[in-house]
Amino acid sequence: MVNKYKVIFQPAGRRGEIEEGKTILEAAQALGVDLEALCGNKKVCGKCKVRIEEGYFEKDNIESGMSHISPPAASEDELKHIKPEDGPGIRLACSSEIHGDLKVFVPERSRAGKQVVRKAAKELSIALDPAVKKYPLTFTRPTLHDMTTGDCERVLKALEEGYGLKGLTFDYQALKALQDALREGEWTATFTVWMDREIIKVEPGHVDVCYGLAVDIGTTTCVGYLCDLSTGKVVNTESMMNPQVPYGEDVMSRITYAMTNPAGLQTMQDAIITGLNEIIEKVVTEIKQDGPHPGYAIDDLTIVFNTAMHHIFLGLNPTYIGRSPFIPATQSSLNIKARDLGLRINPSAYMHVLPIEAGFVGADNVGVLIAQEQYNQDEMVLVIDVGTNGELLLGNRERVCSTSCATGPAFEGAQIKFGMRAAPGAIEKVKIDPETKEPQYKVIGKADWHTHIEGKINAKGICGSGIIDVIAEMFRAGIIDKSGKFVMNLGTNRVRTDVDGRPEYVLAWAEETSINTDITVAQADVRALQLAKGALYTGAKLMMQKMGVKKLDRVELAGAFGSHIDREASLTLGMFPDVPIDSVVVVGNAAGDGARMALLNKDKRREAEERARWVEFVEIATEPAFEKEFMQAMHIPHMKDKFPSVKELFQQSGSKVEIKG
Amino acid sequence: MVNKYKVIFQPAGRRGEIEEGKTILEAAQALGVDLEALCGNKKVCGKCKVRIEEGYFEKDNIESGMSHISPPAASEDELKHIKPEDGPGIRLACSSEIHGDLKVFVPERSRAGKQVVRKAAKELSIALDPAVKKYPLTFTRPTLHDMTTGDCERVLKALEEGYGLKGLTFDYQALKALQDALREGEWTATFTVWMDREIIKVEPGHVDVCYGLAVDIGTTTCVGYLCDLSTGKVVNTESMMNPQVPYGEDVMSRITYAMTNPAGLQTMQDAIITGLNEIIEKVVTEIKQDGPHPGYAIDDLTIVFNTAMHHIFLGLNPTYIGRSPFIPATQSSLNIKARDLGLRINPSAYMHVLPIEAGFVGADNVGVLIAQEQYNQDEMVLVIDVGTNGELLLGNRERVCSTSCATGPAFEGAQIKFGMRAAPGAIEKVKIDPETKEPQYKVIGKADWHTHIEGKINAKGICGSGIIDVIAEMFRAGIIDKSGKFVMNLGTNRVRTDVDGRPEYVLAWAEETSINTDITVAQADVRALQLAKGALYTGAKLMMQKMGVKKLDRVELAGAFGSHIDREASLTLGMFPDVPIDSVVVVGNAAGDGARMALLNKDKRREAEERARWVEFVEIATEPAFEKEFMQAMHIPHMKDKFPSVKELFQQSGSKVEIKG
Repeated sequence: MVNKYKVIFQPAGRRGEIEEGKTILEAAQALGVDLEALCGNKKVCGKCKVRIEEGYFEKDNIESGMSHISPPAASEDELKHIKPEDGPGIRLACSSEIHGDLKVFVPERSRAGKQVVRKAAKELSIALDPAVKKYPLTFTRPTLHDMTTGDCERVLKALEEGYGLKGLTFDYQALKALQDALREGEWTATFTVWMDREIIKVEPGHVDVCYGLAVDIGTTTCVGYLCDLSTGKVVNTESMMNPQVPYGEDVMSRITYAMTNPAGLQTMQDAIITGLNEIIEKVVTEIKQDGPHPGYAIDDLTIVFNTAMHHIFLGLNPTYIGRSPFIPATQSSLNIKARDLGLRINPSAYMHVLPIEAGFVGADNVGVLIAQEQYNQDEMVLVIDVGTNGELLLGNRERVCSTSCATGPAFEGAQIKFGMRAAPGAIEKVKIDPETKEPQYKVIGKADWHTHIEGKINAKGICGSGIIDVIAEMFRAGIIDKSGKFVMNLGTNRVRTDVDGRPEYVLAWAEETSINTDITVAQADVRALQLAKGALYTGAKLMMQKMGVKKLDRVELAGAFGSHIDREASLTLGMFPDVPIDSVVVVGNAAGDGARMALLNKDKRREAEERARWVEFVEIATEPAFEKEFMQAMHIPHMKDKFPSVKELFQQSGSKVEIKG
Repeated sequence: MVNKYKVIFQPAGRRGEIEEGKTILEAAQALGVDLEALCGNKKVCGKCKVRIEEGYFEKDNIESGMSHISPPAASEDELKHIKPEDGPGIRLACSSEIHGDLKVFVPERSRAGKQVVRKAAKELSIALDPAVKKYPLTFTRPTLHDMTTGDCERVLKALEEGYGLKGLTFDYQALKALQDALREGEWTATFTVWMDREIIKVEPGHVDVCYGLAVDIGTTTCVGYLCDLSTGKVVNTESMMNPQVPYGEDVMSRITYAMTNPAGLQTMQDAIITGLNEIIEKVVTEIKQDGPHPGYAIDDLTIVFNTAMHHIFLGLNPTYIGRSPFIPATQSSLNIKARDLGLRINPSAYMHVLPIEAGFVGADNVGVLIAQEQYNQDEMVLVIDVGTNGELLLGNRERVCSTSCATGPAFEGAQIKFGMRAAPGAIEKVKIDPETKEPQYKVIGKADWHTHIEGKINAKGICGSGIIDVIAEMFRAGIIDKSGKFVMNLGTNRVRTDVDGRPEYVLAWAEETSINTDITVAQADVRALQLAKGALYTGAKLMMQKMGVKKLDRVELAGAFGSHIDREASLTLGMFPDVPIDSVVVVGNAAGDGARMALLNKDKRREAEERARWVEFVEIATEPAFEKEFMQAMHIPHMKDKFPSVKELFQQSGSKVEIKG
């Protein structure tokens, strides 16, 4: 017998009986309480803070018979996240077990909100010709004369006669459903065919609508776009933190985890497959489902990721891409049965893996490539895909080069003190008055800037675009200097030092927030952003140098969550070499767009395969000039008066522009 | 805590501690005691009888503190099998749980022996061109220049350059092994390729030997032939009772089981897959294995079965082949990944399912067809495949027709009182002196007839060929009449009545046996054989009638365990229409031969597909004449003086022979 205890969550007022030993987070999930758990219960994100208001919490309190609030004996992991300013009784819900009746308060800041993936699914202009199509057929009821013709053979003949589909094969699982489907539909059934080659589903009656999922697995965040393959429209979007984050925050640390733990690769593969299955289950909630499991309605899946995520997702040993000579297991596109990976879509469906380029320039960059199509343009375009890894594509129809640089997750709002996902309550835009240092900001979910809102503002944190904005504005307002250091004594209480004497800027006062704490930008936040933008800048600059490109015609900013970056702020920060502001274009999640295009038009798959081989990979990090350039690029902005511009560099060196055609 | 009890098995003398509640059979298996369990622990075969010599056996005895032999409280299932003549203390080991210390005696008759599958794997004359081949390759170690070429792409290029294999694909599981295999073999590896299309295994270093398994799943018995694909030789053979027997002894009762039990199909599919996995595990015991599991060395598998076994094995609903208009799910050959079926061979390998013809004429009959190749002969040949279902092929290069008839399992030694598998101790040949009625018999494992053996004869039972022999001899010696009825008062103590007054013939006296019981042939045994042979005869006769064939040039007797049928005995019994004895050929397990041929030469797969469509299926059981013919055909022999011969029948009817060319 397991003991059960009463647990009450405030302010939601939800209550229930929970088994002894479960965590508060598990209790919240069981009772449907809205509680943030970014990292997937791995005790690393520190976002699930709750306050124990009353009750038996620790085992020893039960024994002593105490019934009031017990002092939390937090673990070392928890203590990393709990700060004195959090107040008394704060614990991480994921780390705290229940050993008695409890009353728990969930602070506003810990309440999860539905992620807003703005512009995540922009309109794509693409001819609809998906790899998977549905074909309805009606048969005459067989008689004894048909005794020597199997159901399968009758169907194949009819698909050839009715639709010109020759030489089709039956997937084994689909074949198993054939007999009953034909009879259930009274000899009318719909056949789902993959690439005009294989029957992957049989459904009774007429079925028109057909779904596919385009997936973008980032090092930090994952997103899935559910598309109606008969209209091309995005029906729903779901995103989540990559559940591999607990095994390493960046690509190299995950490769190391796989190398140093015997079951490391399997553990991480299982984590991401489970994660994608969660996305699948959530993304289909609003469509009609008849199948044996929620995701069964999905008949096709395309996927992009960087090379390390690609290998780990597929269970391919990532060791060899992590060390010289950096050989990947495979570069070509792959079609793998969903059931071979344990993906909970139609088990007979294929997952189409876009090809990878080389080294760390993976299928996600191929997605960007086929979405942005530099190879069809005359202009010299730099495409920057902003993520935990920054990936760069530079070129035009003559030649396109690619490279990769480690930016860290700052652009995505991670590793930032008040960083949060782009969800209601997130500050997404910031302006700072250069005189008064007073900010104006816009919160997701509110129609106007905070100074124009009557009533509660309810700010909760800062999302990726807000961070770029606020740091660019802090520089313009003279709150930080070009080295990123705080300027003190500006005659404003917005710039102050925290309890440890470290400088910070108050973006929102406690009363403007829903978390009753000042939302601040710390020196460490500024540093994280400088590292990220410095990496991007250096990559772009050295690639231009290598290709002999003097001038960019256009910069395209892409990224799963970088779609709302302010162009001016990105220029101010010096995220990339100088171009006129009108030549900076924010293109949204181009990698995801590429995955969607490959889902909606099968020719895009062929194009991806060809162009992945055509693009030239250039290695930047091993360039002798890299370190020096990187140190300089950390500054804000990369000032012309201090450092030579790319143009000047080339004029000095006298090098010629070489165009390979 | 689970109690453990001491269990001793005599005469083997094995002993050990066994957990309370385990059956005696489980204890025997755990302690390595040789104990027959034909039906796979399903309590139906009654072959695992043991005698409890001493000990706490029943729960209530423990409570009463008794320590001597306890009277067995046998269940109804057990009582069906336990006869008074078995003596005291007899129980079925599979049905008796252990609840105290025990001493168990295993009677000779219950000791399992290794099945002898004589001639099971006759020499085949066939060109070696298997669907699966191994290709070794050595690569230069990659350098930084190869950074943009994946392992997979390098391998595909080398296979094209070295062996002319174009457009190969990689199985996903094989791809997962690629990187480590290349490096473990220091850039020498061997690639296993299926149908010159797909890489299904990567092994480090040079690997020459390649194995395949040809499988014949009968309604009652299953057999697997392990073949070395580089020599074509059979390396090992394993057989077992079909573990679906508990769900129905014949095809129709299994279809009924699937129709009337919600999980019936799944249960039976699981049973046969588990059974085949046992065959796989046993058949590879003597070959070198490096893989992750015993059967991993097997890279190809071909399989034949009748249509019902085909559907159930593949998890296809057999309902529709069991009722009009008898439409199968599919007739074509199939290639299904071993992993999709849970077969424990190389998970990337394919199982090749031979095509089926129509109705109950399944892939096993296609196996017979491509092994016997009537379509390449001028002679009019009748091929009889003797099994639980008898399948008939009649024709020559002009035309071949097929049909099926239900014979029951008597030819396989099942449902016969002293029936047993063809294992040491089985009586396989019998002669009876017409005067004295004294028999001579030959026991498997002994070099000569029993009358010529000095010392112990140790007969244990009668196998299929022995049953056909003894009943034919009983007829010739006048012990039974042509209606199958015993003739009494023949002046010999060999013919007597049992305790219930039913007549029986004593084939071996208790002292000649290892089971200390007279081995007898009962009236019911004679009846079972009459039914079986009557079904075959009727099928053959009606098919000749339909095709207008007056005279057979040859009769070929096939069957997994019918390979040792005595030709003369089969003629005496009237198993098929009259032909000269020299025109009767025993061809062994032709269905299995066909599976082996398809394993050894991939052209045979194409031939099977074509010929399966070419053969004409004729329905015999629904013929108006069937019942009358069948009643007559039960007699021994089908006497010309009593019933008109086929020739006479046709002369009377005046029908013309129609030959379709």
